[in-house]
Amino acid sequence: METLNNRPPVYYSEYLQLDTLLNAQAPESAKEGIRADDEMLFVIIHQSYELWFKQILHELTIIRNIFLQPELPNNSPDIYNVVHKLKRVCTILELLVDQLGIMETMTPLDFLDFRDLLRPASGFQSIQFKIIEATLGLTYENRYGKEYYLSQLNEKDIERVKQAEKEESLIVLLNKWLERMPFCQEVAYWNKDHSASSGAHPFWEAYRAAYAKGLLPMEQHNLKTFDQLFIHENEYPEERRLSSLASRNAFFIMLYRDYPLLQLPYELLNTLLEIDELMSMWRHRHIHMVERTIGKRVGTGGSTGAGYLKAAADSHYVFKEISELTSFLLPRHELPPLPEALIKDLSYSK
Amino acid sequence: METLNNRPPVYYSEYLQLDTLLNAQAPESAKEGIRADDEMLFVIIHQSYELWFKQILHELTIIRNIFLQPELPNNSPDIYNVVHKLKRVCTILELLVDQLGIMETMTPLDFLDFRDLLRPASGFQSIQFKIIEATLGLTYENRYGKEYYLSQLNEKDIERVKQAEKEESLIVLLNKWLERMPFCQEVAYWNKDHSASSGAHPFWEAYRAAYAKGLLPMEQHNLKTFDQLFIHENEYPEERRLSSLASRNAFFIMLYRDYPLLQLPYELLNTLLEIDELMSMWRHRHIHMVERTIGKRVGTGGSTGAGYLKAAADSHYVFKEISELTSFLLPRHELPPLPEALIKDLSYSK
Amino acid sequence: METLNNRPPVYYSEYLQLDTLLNAQAPESAKEGIRADDEMLFVIIHQSYELWFKQILHELTIIRNIFLQPELPNNSPDIYNVVHKLKRVCTILELLVDQLGIMETMTPLDFLDFRDLLRPASGFQSIQFKIIEATLGLTYENRYGKEYYLSQLNEKDIERVKQAEKEESLIVLLNKWLERMPFCQEVAYWNKDHSASSGAHPFWEAYRAAYAKGLLPMEQHNLKTFDQLFIHENEYPEERRLSSLASRNAFFIMLYRDYPLLQLPYELLNTLLEIDELMSMWRHRHIHMVERTIGKRVGTGGSTGAGYLKAAADSHYVFKEISELTSFLLPRHELPPLPEALIKDLSYSK
Amino acid sequence: METLNNRPPVYYSEYLQLDTLLNAQAPESAKEGIRADDEMLFVIIHQSYELWFKQILHELTIIRNIFLQPELPNNSPDIYNVVHKLKRVCTILELLVDQLGIMETMTPLDFLDFRDLLRPASGFQSIQFKIIEATLGLTYENRYGKEYYLSQLNEKDIERVKQAEKEESLIVLLNKWLERMPFCQEVAYWNKDHSASSGAHPFWEAYRAAYAKGLLPMEQHNLKTFDQLFIHENEYPEERRLSSLASRNAFFIMLYRDYPLLQLPYELLNTLLEIDELMSMWRHRHIHMVERTIGKRVGTGGSTGAGYLKAAADSHYVFKEISELTSFLLPRHELPPLPEALIKDLSYSK
Repeated sequence: METLNNRPPVYYSEYLQLDTLLNAQAPESAKEGIRADDEMLFVIIHQSYELWFKQILHELTIIRNIFLQPELPNNSPDIYNVVHKLKRVCTILELLVDQLGIMETMTPLDFLDFRDLLRPASGFQSIQFKIIEATLGLTYENRYGKEYYLSQLNEKDIERVKQAEKEESLIVLLNKWLERMPFCQEVAYWNKDHSASSGAHPFWEAYRAAYAKGLLPMEQHNLKTFDQLFIHENEYPEERRLSSLASRNAFFIMLYRDYPLLQLPYELLNTLLEIDELMSMWRHRHIHMVERTIGKRVGTGGSTGAGYLKAAADSHYVFKEISELTSFLLPRHELPPLPEALIKDLSYSK
Repeated sequence: METLNNRPPVYYSEYLQLDTLLNAQAPESAKEGIRADDEMLFVIIHQSYELWFKQILHELTIIRNIFLQPELPNNSPDIYNVVHKLKRVCTILELLVDQLGIMETMTPLDFLDFRDLLRPASGFQSIQFKIIEATLGLTYENRYGKEYYLSQLNEKDIERVKQAEKEESLIVLLNKWLERMPFCQEVAYWNKDHSASSGAHPFWEAYRAAYAKGLLPMEQHNLKTFDQLFIHENEYPEERRLSSLASRNAFFIMLYRDYPLLQLPYELLNTLLEIDELMSMWRHRHIHMVERTIGKRVGTGGSTGAGYLKAAADSHYVFKEISELTSFLLPRHELPPLPEALIKDLSYSK
Repeated sequence: METLNNRPPVYYSEYLQLDTLLNAQAPESAKEGIRADDEMLFVIIHQSYELWFKQILHELTIIRNIFLQPELPNNSPDIYNVVHKLKRVCTILELLVDQLGIMETMTPLDFLDFRDLLRPASGFQSIQFKIIEATLGLTYENRYGKEYYLSQLNEKDIERVKQAEKEESLIVLLNKWLERMPFCQEVAYWNKDHSASSGAHPFWEAYRAAYAKGLLPMEQHNLKTFDQLFIHENEYPEERRLSSLASRNAFFIMLYRDYPLLQLPYELLNTLLEIDELMSMWRHRHIHMVERTIGKRVGTGGSTGAGYLKAAADSHYVFKEISELTSFLLPRHELPPLPEALIKDLSYSK
Repeated sequence: METLNNRPPVYYSEYLQLDTLLNAQAPESAKEGIRADDEMLFVIIHQSYELWFKQILHELTIIRNIFLQPELPNNSPDIYNVVHKLKRVCTILELLVDQLGIMETMTPLDFLDFRDLLRPASGFQSIQFKIIEATLGLTYENRYGKEYYLSQLNEKDIERVKQAEKEESLIVLLNKWLERMPFCQEVAYWNKDHSASSGAHPFWEAYRAAYAKGLLPMEQHNLKTFDQLFIHENEYPEERRLSSLASRNAFFIMLYRDYPLLQLPYELLNTLLEIDELMSMWRHRHIHMVERTIGKRVGTGGSTGAGYLKAAADSHYVFKEISELTSFLLPRHELPPLPEALIKDLSYSK
């Protein structure tokens, strides 16, 4: 720290590069000599979004690096930090949803003052947003409106998104981490106390029995899905992002989150669902804003803006395989009890 | 005021009837001797919603009474008060959207502790919410899931909603108010300065010409809709809630909202769109909450909760005929100028 | 518009200068090779604040230009636009208050990773924030901590703030605009229907009588203040920013805001109070954030951060002379009625 | 669960006792035949606050019961549940702060329509709010405005608050829980690897040395306070709510929160600070609302409303002894390393 004392003094505006930052707004209307007071708002709100997108990517990169370790030691702060950072991403996303309220102070007439000057630019061209989606786990195949993506971005930007899609995304890394979890599947815990009539794992067999008992007549089809996911490994649906093993362990975490070792993993899963939800909220509120501002006219980028957003809002859930597991939960008092040895390993050492 | 001084002193808890209010929570789990700590939250948040629904209905009733007057004197505070009260309704709705965040602190496992005890009750049975929808203008015909409505409510409640549907709703009253507006249609303003080649109103003919010029090739179909709405009265779509005359006047307000007399009417229209948007936001966030809490299982009321909410979110826009007018707006500098006499009548007297 | 069609196509990232914007983050820790993951957040949140400060200044400049006109025609959209823009400023300020919640996700330990590297920079050095304060109307004399201002800013920045303090601030322009309002003071309205026993203006005499009657014994000192403000012009407190005439007209607006011509002026006054409130909320939440992050240690800028903010929060109300007028309001049913001629002039022409 | 199937069906409005709840609003103005449209808002918003206060007390009671156990097994979900519930309390408090925005839609003139009818009732008489304060740990001695409390409440209500003050409050229970924490103080961990020259505990001696090195000249007085708190037990300030041992353990948690066993305890402390902050935010926003609505007139309860709230906002921090510990934190890389045996006991068993 001593050497630090010899550093030159830091000045707020230089540290933040405000000369650069606050001179980077160039409304098109000014170039044309047209008065359009609200174009500044339009520029600044988009720039603010992009700054926050950079921050989200910064956090996601750190999180990915944590998960890229071959093993996450249980006794490190890694998962705690991941949860903390994901919650921060949620806090940022909440702000970004609210921030649309500022855009909504721009009336349609005020937008028309400069709207035609922006063609064919469009928010669809935000590369950082696409990289965020890809980093979470949205694939090219699952993207709604792939054709826009190829037609509206320039070569370099298409390349950047494609590169992001090639990296191991958060859901892929999560899958690997879930697969490494030893508890529920490890045969050693179960052999002594449990015996399964069929070849099935004794835990899942017991769980299935309890689950089947509680279903309403109109819910019987849930049991079939349950079996596909948890009982008959060979029927496990191919198209799923999470493997059979990862799904089971995710579900196990949701069920036994009361044990110390599973508390943070549960928070982790829960926070991922919150990110999906907030991304969806952002899209929905964005739709409203677009509909109020441009109605049903074609967006500056040539798409029917609201239509694209709506389809994306409905189909871009990255972690929905986790949220859907909720359907199979049982009340705590009906949960199969765990073997003593397993309970011990789910606990603090002291 | 003198007599007021002889009133007995008011005491906070009596004024608010807290003895009644704070003893009106009776969790079902307590009756069964089951421990379910979060049922209290479940009861209280729903009660809080219902209190706010009562307040929204209180405001809507005052607003309807203002519009029920045979004429709204321009020089009264009536429209100012209507706008003020609608904005308050928006502020309340914003809170109600945020309030779902409290519900989301209840995890699926914690909900399962008491969920089965509530069957077949469901939030669908909130009569006040249905009356709010009806008061704004949602008709029985336009309701998604009419069948639930008849099957899930008791006789008395069906009767209450039907009664509300019979009253003149806000959109009906708005339509009448818009029809009474003299400015744009009144021939006297236009005869001298304008002459229409066809039989069409000179204002709309001029506007059509300007609008047609600005359309992109891919937007040409907009012109056909424009003509149906503003030019060929006999082609005006039958199913619309707003009459041809009311639509024209609403659009005129949106275009010339810079004139004093139209400023508050514009705020009024804009605030109605905000209510639609907030109701939709409430439904969407509600969907997320339901999906996270019960997954894809059948809701306590027997519906697939999220599915109902989603369809309602997409179809229950009461004022969408107004928001869609945005598609036909022109930039201010392309607007047809108004006759002097009309400008004068759109102004303050001094 | 035709020429617009020949413009080169606009591309999102170029329009927003994202290459510049997203390369303007240079954490000090990176320069020193120290790992401090949260410094990026620290940089980005401050940059986001500065972007929004630029937008607020953009709006305030437009507002000041409107008020700088020698006369504001009643029939222009000027006041409507001012109110709209001030409400937008409020919406932005609300976001800036909430945005502190993102900063609060940085824990004290995480801040310590890079805190010493920032000395002696401090948020106190935000020139744009000081210019916002000056533009609203905070004077050098009323600034808490003038000494910091001279010691912590560089020459150029001191010059910029001083320049802003020299301009006619919003409160000065508001004062002039209020003084030009004809209604309440104009003798012509009052002579016929009212006669004042003393030399006082008949309206204020009548109002005083009604006000005196409603005061509680413990509130009698309010009457003395009332007289200073509204009755005895020669006793009008010298230190006030609003002149006697402006105060009266502001109060008249608050009382008779139900008349059309006063509705927007009332909204204007009310929104200014909201800005004061939001600036104060921002300071208070800022205090909490600082206290949680650095405790009672000296801030990077050498001040005891929280202490400065607290004093500023309590003393930097620009429009408090307006909010204090609330003390003198009477219920509507006790208000003196207005002369017919005045009522007519407070109305729309038709 | 089988018996549950025989339960009578639950109906939404009966479950929530809506007949009772929605008939418990009796505006005074209605009784007097005075039209005061906004009194309903006034009643409903206060009732909504009281419902949420009941929920907060419900959560605090469960939390207190957890802490009232003679020992909190490390391997139970107890602390996890406490943190979850405290975060819910924060979510509720955030809503209550925002909810004031609805009250602010009531203008001063509209409040005056019914204000005199409420005398001498006042929000100060909310017993539940006082019980929340007492449950967190505010004592009678530390209450600002004790005299109001005795003069404005009726006998029964004074009794209820006094009863709440007699219970072991959250801060008292927290103190006991912190004192029971074995890690930092337990001599066994330290003897082998560390030796203290003085009689002082080797950990605190090492920490003091590192802390002293980093202080700026103007911060030297911090060292004296440090010694009082952590080194010289006999100088430990008498008036503190946390014992010397509890303070040390709280600080130890803040420093080494990266170890698994301390992660949740850290979240716990942090959430308590957030509750203090939100209570303070609530008071500050409340002050603004009161000032805007009644100005400097005496409140309905006879106090100068804003003055009371301000003093309470500044002095009613229950957990400030914890937040002040932040002043003594060191950057992670300067923290004394922990003995291996201690690290093991701060970890999961596997």
